[in-house]
Amino acid sequence: DQVFLMKPRVSPCVRPLSATHAYRHASQTATDLVHEADFEGPCMKTEVPGPISRVRQASRFISSNVMQVNFFCDYEESRGNYLVDVDGNRMLDVYTQIASIPIGYNHPALTKVMADPKNLGTLVNRPALGMLPPRKLPETLFDSLISVAPKGFSRVQTMACGSCSNENAYKSIFIWYRNKQRGTSKPTPEEERTSLLNQVPGCPDLTLLSFMGGFHGRTLGCLATTHTKAIQKLDVPSFNWPIAPYPKLKYPLDQFERENAQEEARCLEEVEDLIEKWAKMGRPVAGIVIEPIQAEGGDNHASFDFYRKLRGIAKKHGCAFLVDEVQTGGGSTGKFWAHEHWGLDDPADIVSFSKKMLTGGYYYKDHFQAGEPFRIFNTWLGDHTKNIFLAEVIKVIRTENLLEEVKRSGKVMLQGLYDLQAKYPHLLSNARGIGTFCAIDLRDEATRNVLIWKARNKGLVLGGCGTQSIRFRPALVFKERHAHLFLDIFNDAIAELR
Amino acid sequence: DQVFLMKPRVSPCVRPLSATHAYRHASQTATDLVHEADFEGPCMKTEVPGPISRVRQASRFISSNVMQVNFFCDYEESRGNYLVDVDGNRMLDVYTQIASIPIGYNHPALTKVMADPKNLGTLVNRPALGMLPPRKLPETLFDSLISVAPKGFSRVQTMACGSCSNENAYKSIFIWYRNKQRGTSKPTPEEERTSLLNQVPGCPDLTLLSFMGGFHGRTLGCLATTHTKAIQKLDVPSFNWPIAPYPKLKYPLDQFERENAQEEARCLEEVEDLIEKWAKMGRPVAGIVIEPIQAEGGDNHASFDFYRKLRGIAKKHGCAFLVDEVQTGGGSTGKFWAHEHWGLDDPADIVSFSKKMLTGGYYYKDHFQAGEPFRIFNTWLGDHTKNIFLAEVIKVIRTENLLEEVKRSGKVMLQGLYDLQAKYPHLLSNARGIGTFCAIDLRDEATRNVLIWKARNKGLVLGGCGTQSIRFRPALVFKERHAHLFLDIFNDAIAELR
Repeated sequence: DQVFLMKPRVSPCVRPLSATHAYRHASQTATDLVHEADFEGPCMKTEVPGPISRVRQASRFISSNVMQVNFFCDYEESRGNYLVDVDGNRMLDVYTQIASIPIGYNHPALTKVMADPKNLGTLVNRPALGMLPPRKLPETLFDSLISVAPKGFSRVQTMACGSCSNENAYKSIFIWYRNKQRGTSKPTPEEERTSLLNQVPGCPDLTLLSFMGGFHGRTLGCLATTHTKAIQKLDVPSFNWPIAPYPKLKYPLDQFERENAQEEARCLEEVEDLIEKWAKMGRPVAGIVIEPIQAEGGDNHASFDFYRKLRGIAKKHGCAFLVDEVQTGGGSTGKFWAHEHWGLDDPADIVSFSKKMLTGGYYYKDHFQAGEPFRIFNTWLGDHTKNIFLAEVIKVIRTENLLEEVKRSGKVMLQGLYDLQAKYPHLLSNARGIGTFCAIDLRDEATRNVLIWKARNKGLVLGGCGTQSIRFRPALVFKERHAHLFLDIFNDAIAELR
Repeated sequence: DQVFLMKPRVSPCVRPLSATHAYRHASQTATDLVHEADFEGPCMKTEVPGPISRVRQASRFISSNVMQVNFFCDYEESRGNYLVDVDGNRMLDVYTQIASIPIGYNHPALTKVMADPKNLGTLVNRPALGMLPPRKLPETLFDSLISVAPKGFSRVQTMACGSCSNENAYKSIFIWYRNKQRGTSKPTPEEERTSLLNQVPGCPDLTLLSFMGGFHGRTLGCLATTHTKAIQKLDVPSFNWPIAPYPKLKYPLDQFERENAQEEARCLEEVEDLIEKWAKMGRPVAGIVIEPIQAEGGDNHASFDFYRKLRGIAKKHGCAFLVDEVQTGGGSTGKFWAHEHWGLDDPADIVSFSKKMLTGGYYYKDHFQAGEPFRIFNTWLGDHTKNIFLAEVIKVIRTENLLEEVKRSGKVMLQGLYDLQAKYPHLLSNARGIGTFCAIDLRDEATRNVLIWKARNKGLVLGGCGTQSIRFRPALVFKERHAHLFLDIFNDAIAELR
């Protein structure tokens, strides 16, 4: 265990770049200089995972399954877009802790929040937010979640993580639906009695409609609406709820408009058929849950028109419409919420979030407020520390104009991906994305996994999704120069594939 | 909104005590002097909630249901056992954020952790713990969760909250059970295919056995094993799983041994009947989930012998045995884990925790480790910040010998409750508890609620449980002198009841 205590010296070094276009668009601002000062690019010293990571991976004390660990990180040394590992390797991070780091590592604004003695009380004493909120809860929510609420929402419920957010959003939907059916929020004595026994009518036979390829979390309620990989669902009892097909589109979307529209029409028809069929079975669809882009399922896109029509179907049949923005929310599509691209005044009843928002939670329309207290409740109801950090993150997004940066760097990224798939048509296909929320498909799963490994050893951290896709999830501080650098390294890694 | 920004001056003041025994056992240590220095007792300036709290309660920006809010808190001004509200009222806290503050407010040791620049990287950049753990994860887990692991456990999985802990513990049980049935962790293609559709055999018809009055969380999986109040379960679809009766015992336990043993035998027989009946139905019980003391359900106790026999039944029938220590764990029973009182070498297969442990999670026996990666997984898998705080909390518990303090103050508390129920037999009954994990019943729900309100306005924060009980959940820094002070104020409040 001695070796745990060894800390490698991280010395700044510049990776020689193979392409001349890197840095072409470089325009470092003062802020960049502060927090990425020493880092002009990746700097690789060992294979990843390196020797120190490997020893630590062998520790029987690490939580969870050791096979999940990529490598151990040095979060103190990481800066901006660069993740540094315990062996002193510095990598351009285009995965960002599974899309959950909003403004890069160790942003000075966040470090300042930590050091502010005004925040100490809340940071050290975690409040039960629902019962005994801290003084500043209203102001902090106003400066954070409320200030970026999607149009039409003025209510928000915080939760500790993405799964809890969806679980409680589902409960809000069921409560709303039953209140509608009953015509009152007052239950009958029979409902009260049977609810304690998990039986109808207290625990009703309502359903949620979800989509093949959708991912909404891994707790039992969420898992019943998740349909991505067998390994995530296998052996866990589930609910018998309707599952609709998600459109399988051809990319780029604007070149296959007619075929794609047909495919979307087929899926929408199936959605309506399912709603009608399950209503006849006495197990009505209380809500529809969907991601604006199926992320974990393989970065599957549908057109804005598809979503607009789906919203209409939900409304027509009296189903709640829940947009799960856990992965898409927080700015990486170039708008703060991906569903804002749809161009609808009333696109959703509930919008759930987590990851880059730092706290989990969901926005909800007024009529989804459960009338009685303690229907939506738990001990902590989120973590106020994260609200405080989020207020600062949002300030940085505004001050540094990061949504515009995302649009710019996303354009470079997507054009670069198009160029690469033209250059390597036997390996790459289906480059797609909005903002920096981009993806590309590899020939097969094995090639995808090799490519991720090769890229990492060239100083580029990537993550997969679906069966053979790579998803790109940089932080919002990913600028055009980082996009060029990314393309450069990615190209080098692809060039080594057979 | 101007009034939000007003901050009252909190001046130290001593509440005149009506009983002479307060402070009798006072023996302030150096540490106490530092963090409770100004506070010799409660200090009430307004009714609670006071005017500043009430204005803030009216804010439409507070998250969750406004009717749940007791009052707004000034966590900066709170110290040790004293919670200060935004109106400058200082109250002795015997509820501690629903039993989740381990060593009191603003303990200097925790404040120091916040200020340590070595921790900054992890505090500012939340890692995806399963994939990209921070350098110190093994050491921190060793110093925190592993160092207090119940006998027989060397594995732990962290999670963000109590509900997620149980949800994932349930998944571990189902995976373990199916692996046993299959004789391998390798699923068939049919299982893989059907799992994505929520259907058997991929999503099997397994069940968990839980108890009436048990509480295990509010997400859909947990909620199927929670049977406390209708308001928590109403309108939410659930699983049809077996529910056993929990013994309804007479207190004090040692005066009703024969009747209580009969009641426990009846419940254990029912448990075995249910296991056999559900096995015959083809829906076997994969696991039994139970609290060492039913907390939310009304602080219902069963004998250690009951738990020992229940554990035997689980083993005999091949069911996993999950002990939910979310509320009981962390030291308030005088042992670190309440189930350690049972005196069994192998009391559990899984032990879940949260609240005073600061992080959620569960210990599990080796054979509950899912073979394949990503079966138990999510983005954050807990919050390493909380692990770092927990390591410090455990150090304080050892240095300040807090488990011994709990035994001492718990003895004063329970004896005082016995005295009070002898003094007010028409109002109080069933005083019970282990360590400071105590409770008492009131005549009825309305009287209970009035008493909590009266106590609060005398500077004592209490919480209810069950239909007509008050649960006492002080922090571990609650000393004998605090117990005397508590009894004193509680007595004053009871004396005002008609």
